[in-house]
Amino acid sequence: MLGVLGGMGPMATVDFMGKVIRNTPAACDQDHIEMVVCSATSVPDRTAAILDRGCDPLPAMLDALKRLERSGATCIAIPCNTAHHWHGELQARTAVPILHIVDALADALTERGQQGTTIGVLATDGTVRAGIYQRRLAKRGFSCAMPDASGQAEVMRAIRLVKAGDVDAATTILNREAQALVAGGCSQVAMACTEIPLALAAVTGELKPRLLDPTDTLARACVRSCLAVPQRRVA
Amino acid sequence: MLGVLGGMGPMATVDFMGKVIRNTPAACDQDHIEMVVCSATSVPDRTAAILDRGCDPLPAMLDALKRLERSGATCIAIPCNTAHHWHGELQARTAVPILHIVDALADALTERGQQGTTIGVLATDGTVRAGIYQRRLAKRGFSCAMPDASGQAEVMRAIRLVKAGDVDAATTILNREAQALVAGGCSQVAMACTEIPLALAAVTGELKPRLLDPTDTLARACVRSCLAVPQRRVA
Repeated sequence: MLGVLGGMGPMATVDFMGKVIRNTPAACDQDHIEMVVCSATSVPDRTAAILDRGCDPLPAMLDALKRLERSGATCIAIPCNTAHHWHGELQARTAVPILHIVDALADALTERGQQGTTIGVLATDGTVRAGIYQRRLAKRGFSCAMPDASGQAEVMRAIRLVKAGDVDAATTILNREAQALVAGGCSQVAMACTEIPLALAAVTGELKPRLLDPTDTLARACVRSCLAVPQRRVA
Repeated sequence: MLGVLGGMGPMATVDFMGKVIRNTPAACDQDHIEMVVCSATSVPDRTAAILDRGCDPLPAMLDALKRLERSGATCIAIPCNTAHHWHGELQARTAVPILHIVDALADALTERGQQGTTIGVLATDGTVRAGIYQRRLAKRGFSCAMPDASGQAEVMRAIRLVKAGDVDAATTILNREAQALVAGGCSQVAMACTEIPLALAAVTGELKPRLLDPTDTLARACVRSCLAVPQRRVA
């Protein structure tokens, strides 16, 4: 059973769940993977905590983690990139494997033989400051490039717009910042905040094939992991 | 905290969660309602059980219900119309209120002063056979009309197509059956299986304002119920 430590934000969790379902070969309900999902919206802002301006989100995430564990999760995913700053601390507190969103992306890129390329990263200030993508991708042979300071401020503004439900305004901003990363030499651009695919889902044209969706990559990794072990059958 | 007894089917649960989120006034993650969701895809087929051809789904639903209760749910929703056949038995086993999808619809229709009208019902064979809409709506002053036998067989085929991921084929069938109910004198048509809004979401033209979405009505009722009591705050 897949455990989803979600709610960061809530619509990003819904997007992730949809990607798990669409990536599962199934002809009826019973072919699908069982999930237990905590949409833990009260987890304090992750970026604020990384930038030393907010409450520690770890206790609330641990609370949700323990509920997932008690519910029988055998594999856990966190559809929030910034929350991965606490991945090590969370993993240390449970025997249930927590798949890492950047590892899932690195695995997918490696499978395609793309080591050595430069990946543009559109992410929260917290994800960028914590080096979540830079360090993990560097170990796997990829370079990262981020927007400059004013571009990053725009990305952060767009992410907040998505969280507030104003997706259209966010789309315009994120499209521009993604194009800028491509113009700056990135072969591909990772939508490295789970709110971003919500705003760039409908993008078309030259940018589309250059966008990487770590939410989708994580969903695929979860499907592989869950289908590799027999599903718990209640009845 | 809202508990969702879901997975029947899994994409319908995702649709319901999206509707809860979109109906919540929120500017940031922390304004949203906490949810715990069991996507209990292994619950045996509800229609087959009602038609005396399948396993009893109640034990698997009770298992999920107990997990929601242990996780702290203070209000529970079941985004599957057919599963409401067991609403009374589930409610008898928990002190946590389980909102009823037909009551939520009846409340919304009553608020709009539409008593006395005839509501078309597009639903599974199980929902129709069990009289889930007919009996509950009759008590509130509404009449129901269903497709004829061949139309009902088409509706059931369309629902299975959605569950198998073939939404486009389902849209054509359901559009035709909804139009037939309107032509037969129904002022409005309830998409009374949670798979149906997935297939009729993009419908336009004259049919659109006549479609009732009980998934959305239930989501709104849940938002009202959860916002009426203080949210549990972890940190």
